[in-house]
Amino acid sequence: MKSITLSLAENIVDFPLNLIPEEVILESKRSFLNWLGVAIGASQHPSVDIVLELANEIGGFPQATILGRNVKTDMQFASLINGMSSHIFDFDDTILNTVLHPSAPVWPAILAVAEHNNLTTKEVLEAFVIGCEVEQRIALAICPNHYERGWHVTGTVGAFGAAAAVGKLLKLDHLQMTNALGIAAAQPTGLREMFGTMTKPFHPGKAAANGLLSSLLAKKGFTSSLAPLEAKRGFGQVLSENPSFDVIIEPWGSKWQLLDNSYKPFACGIVTHPGIEAGINLKNIHNINPADIDEIVVEVHPLVLELTGKETPQNQLEAKFSIYHCVAAGIIFGKASEAQFANNIVLREDVVNLRKKIKAVINNSLMEDQTLLHAKLKNGNAIKITIEHAVGSKEKPMTNTELEEKFIELTSDILKGREKKLISKIWEMEKSLPIQEITNFATPLNTSSYK
Amino acid sequence: MKSITLSLAENIVDFPLNLIPEEVILESKRSFLNWLGVAIGASQHPSVDIVLELANEIGGFPQATILGRNVKTDMQFASLINGMSSHIFDFDDTILNTVLHPSAPVWPAILAVAEHNNLTTKEVLEAFVIGCEVEQRIALAICPNHYERGWHVTGTVGAFGAAAAVGKLLKLDHLQMTNALGIAAAQPTGLREMFGTMTKPFHPGKAAANGLLSSLLAKKGFTSSLAPLEAKRGFGQVLSENPSFDVIIEPWGSKWQLLDNSYKPFACGIVTHPGIEAGINLKNIHNINPADIDEIVVEVHPLVLELTGKETPQNQLEAKFSIYHCVAAGIIFGKASEAQFANNIVLREDVVNLRKKIKAVINNSLMEDQTLLHAKLKNGNAIKITIEHAVGSKEKPMTNTELEEKFIELTSDILKGREKKLISKIWEMEKSLPIQEITNFATPLNTSSYK
Repeated sequence: MKSITLSLAENIVDFPLNLIPEEVILESKRSFLNWLGVAIGASQHPSVDIVLELANEIGGFPQATILGRNVKTDMQFASLINGMSSHIFDFDDTILNTVLHPSAPVWPAILAVAEHNNLTTKEVLEAFVIGCEVEQRIALAICPNHYERGWHVTGTVGAFGAAAAVGKLLKLDHLQMTNALGIAAAQPTGLREMFGTMTKPFHPGKAAANGLLSSLLAKKGFTSSLAPLEAKRGFGQVLSENPSFDVIIEPWGSKWQLLDNSYKPFACGIVTHPGIEAGINLKNIHNINPADIDEIVVEVHPLVLELTGKETPQNQLEAKFSIYHCVAAGIIFGKASEAQFANNIVLREDVVNLRKKIKAVINNSLMEDQTLLHAKLKNGNAIKITIEHAVGSKEKPMTNTELEEKFIELTSDILKGREKKLISKIWEMEKSLPIQEITNFATPLNTSSYK
Repeated sequence: MKSITLSLAENIVDFPLNLIPEEVILESKRSFLNWLGVAIGASQHPSVDIVLELANEIGGFPQATILGRNVKTDMQFASLINGMSSHIFDFDDTILNTVLHPSAPVWPAILAVAEHNNLTTKEVLEAFVIGCEVEQRIALAICPNHYERGWHVTGTVGAFGAAAAVGKLLKLDHLQMTNALGIAAAQPTGLREMFGTMTKPFHPGKAAANGLLSSLLAKKGFTSSLAPLEAKRGFGQVLSENPSFDVIIEPWGSKWQLLDNSYKPFACGIVTHPGIEAGINLKNIHNINPADIDEIVVEVHPLVLELTGKETPQNQLEAKFSIYHCVAAGIIFGKASEAQFANNIVLREDVVNLRKKIKAVINNSLMEDQTLLHAKLKNGNAIKITIEHAVGSKEKPMTNTELEEKFIELTSDILKGREKKLISKIWEMEKSLPIQEITNFATPLNTSSYK
C-alpha cells in the first residue's frame, strides 16, 4: 500500500492550481484580510518586543517584513514573530470542528518566503489554500483526542500547513515534500497548559518557523521518514489515540477545508462568542442596565467551561479565558473588542460586580455556537435569550464589510491611513501583484516604531 | 503545594556550584571529550552541509564555532548543527536506564552561549552537570512509557537540559528559569519513527536550539506556565502515561545523574554493544574465521530487536540499526568503528553472507548490557560466549586513555595535529580557561573546509 504521507505529498505537489474554485480563492483573501489585521493589531505587544530584540541580537539578513513594525528580520524570525502577533489577541480565524486556527501558523511562513523570493499575491493565495487543506485534514485525523489529551492543535498541525504551503511555493518534488512533512512531524509545538501566557501565541509562531525550516531543508535534500504521519511511532499514533487517516488520503477537489473557516467578531476564544452575543442582545434589544440585574445564568456547551472557566480574572489574558467577563462585557459595553479586555476594565468595580452575578452551567445538548441566557431582574422579571448560531459562525459568517471594519479598528492606530489602501490591494490579490504591494504597506508610515 | 517545576528551577538557580564533587566535574570533562570527538568526527557529513548552507542564507552573526569547520554561525544555528553532528554517528554517550543521550542536546547550547559571552571552561563544566541533572530527572519521571510510546527522549527532554544549562550561564532568576522550562516544554522534538534518517540527529540539534531559545526569551521576560512539567495538560501528562514526578523534586547533591553516563566504544546504538563484543571475542579469543561458521544465534534483550532488527541493511545508517550487521562486523573485523558501517562494507559479499547466518532471539532474562552468543561451526563444534557487561557499560566503563584514543581516531583526519593539544586542554578545563582555548582548536588548521 502506498504511504499515506506520500499520497498527501503527491496531492500537494500535483493538484492543478487552476482547479481551485473562485469561492475558495475568495475565502483565502478573507482569511488573509482577517489574519493581517489581527497580526498588525497586536504587533506592539511586549512579547513581540522581546522576540524582536532577540532577532536583532542573532542578526539574520533582513529578508521579511515584521508586520506593524518598521523592521525586517530573517525569514525564520519573521515567521515566528508574525505568527505570534496574529494569535496574541485570540482574535484570529477558527475551524470549529477541530478548534484549529488555520492562519496563524501558515500565513507568516508564506509571507516570509514570498517576500524573500519575490513571489506574487496570486501564488500566496493558492499556497494558503494548500496549507489549510493539509493542516486541517491532519487535524481531523487526530482530533478530538489529540486536543483533549492536551495538545494545542494550532501549533502541532500548523507546522504541516506551513511546510506544505512553503513547499508548494518552493516547488518541492514528491520526495522532498514527503521529507518536509516528516521533518515537521518531528517538531510538534504547543501544550494547552500554556494558555493564558505568552507561550500560547508563541505556538503558531514556532509552528510557522518550524514548517518553513522543514521545507527549506527538504528542498536541499535533508531526509526524514517517508511515513511520518501514519507509522507506528509516527506523528498520528504518538500524539493521539486511534487516529483515522482516511481523511488524509481522500481525493482533493470535491470539498475544500478552507470553506469551513470562520472569523471572530470578538477578541477572545470562539467558544465564548454565543455568550457575548446574548449579553449584547440583553443590552441592545432588551435595554437592560447592569444595575437592574439580580442574576444571570448562561447555559453553555461543555467546552466553554473547560476552556474559559476563570471566575475572577485579574488581567487581560485571564479575562479572555473567562466566560463570566465575556458575558459581562457584552452586557455593559455592547461589544467585546480588544479594549473591553484591557486590564483597567477587567478590574473596574462595576465589571467585577456584574461578573459575580453570572453563573455558567453546562448543557450537553447545545452546539458550540449556541447558548441560552436567563436574566433574573431585580424587579422580578425574567428574560430568556436564545442564540442559535453566534455571529462569526459558519452559518452566520462575518460579511466582507464586517471584516473590513474589524481590520480598520485593529490597524488604523498603527497604519495611520494606509489601512484602506491595503484593504483594496487585498481584494485584488488574485491578480498576481508583487507581494511587496502588500508587505510594504503593512507597516507604519514613519520610523517612530521599533528600530 | 509548591509547583514541581518551580522547585526544580530553585535547585538549578540556587545549588552552590562549589558543592559539586570533583568526580562529577571529572565526568563532565569525560563527557565533553567524548562529545567533542563524535561531533568533530561527523562534522563533514552531507546533512551538516545542508544546514550550514541554510545558515549562510539566513545570515546570522558569526557568534559560535561550527565544530570541525572553519566557520561560525549565530548561536541558534551553531546549537542545531553541533547537536546534529554529535549524534550522526550514534557514537555519543548514553544513560542506559532511560536511553537518554545527555550530551548531544546540551553541550552545543552551552558552547554557543559560552563562546558568545566569553565564559570560562570551568563554568561550562558546571553548566553541563546542571543540564544533565535536569534532563535525566525529567526522563526518569516519564520513562519508560514516554520512549515506548514513540518519543525520542534525547530530543524531547534534551531541550530542558539545554534550557537549564544555558539559564544557569545567563544567571536567570527563579521565575525566569521556570518560564524557560515552560517554553522548552511546549517544543518537544523527536519521534522514533525518524530513526535511520537525517532527522534523527536533527532531534538533539533542534532540542539544543529550542532550549537555548527558551532561556534567551525567559531572560528577557517572556512568560510561560509556572507548572509546565506537572500540570494536567503539561509536558509530563501529555507526553506519557502516569508520570512520577517525585524524582524531579528530590534534593540535589546526594546522587548525581551524570555519574550514570556511559560512553560507546562502537559507532552504533548501545544496545548492540554486547553483541559486537561477543563477535569480537569469537574472532580474537576463539580465532574463528567467518568461513568456518554454520550458524550464529545471539540471545538479546528485547530492546535490541525493537531498535536494531533490520535484517538486510543497504547502507550505513541502516547497518547501525541492524544487530545482524553489528555482530558480523565484530566477527569479521574485530571492531565496529565508523569504517565498519561504510556503505561499501555494508554491501560487501562476505559481510552479506555472514549476516544471513546470524539469528537474534529475545531472552527476557538478560539485562541491556548482556548477551549470549552461540556459534555452530561447520566442523560440528559449538562455542558459547557470554557477555556479562559490555565494554562501555557503567560496570566496565571506557578508561580515560580509551576515550582519548577514540577522540584521536575520530578527529585526526580533520584536526590534523590539533587533536592532542585539544585533549590536554580538556583535562585542564576546571582551571577557568577562556572557552576560546577549546573552540579555536576544534576546527581544521587551514580554511580548505567549508566556506
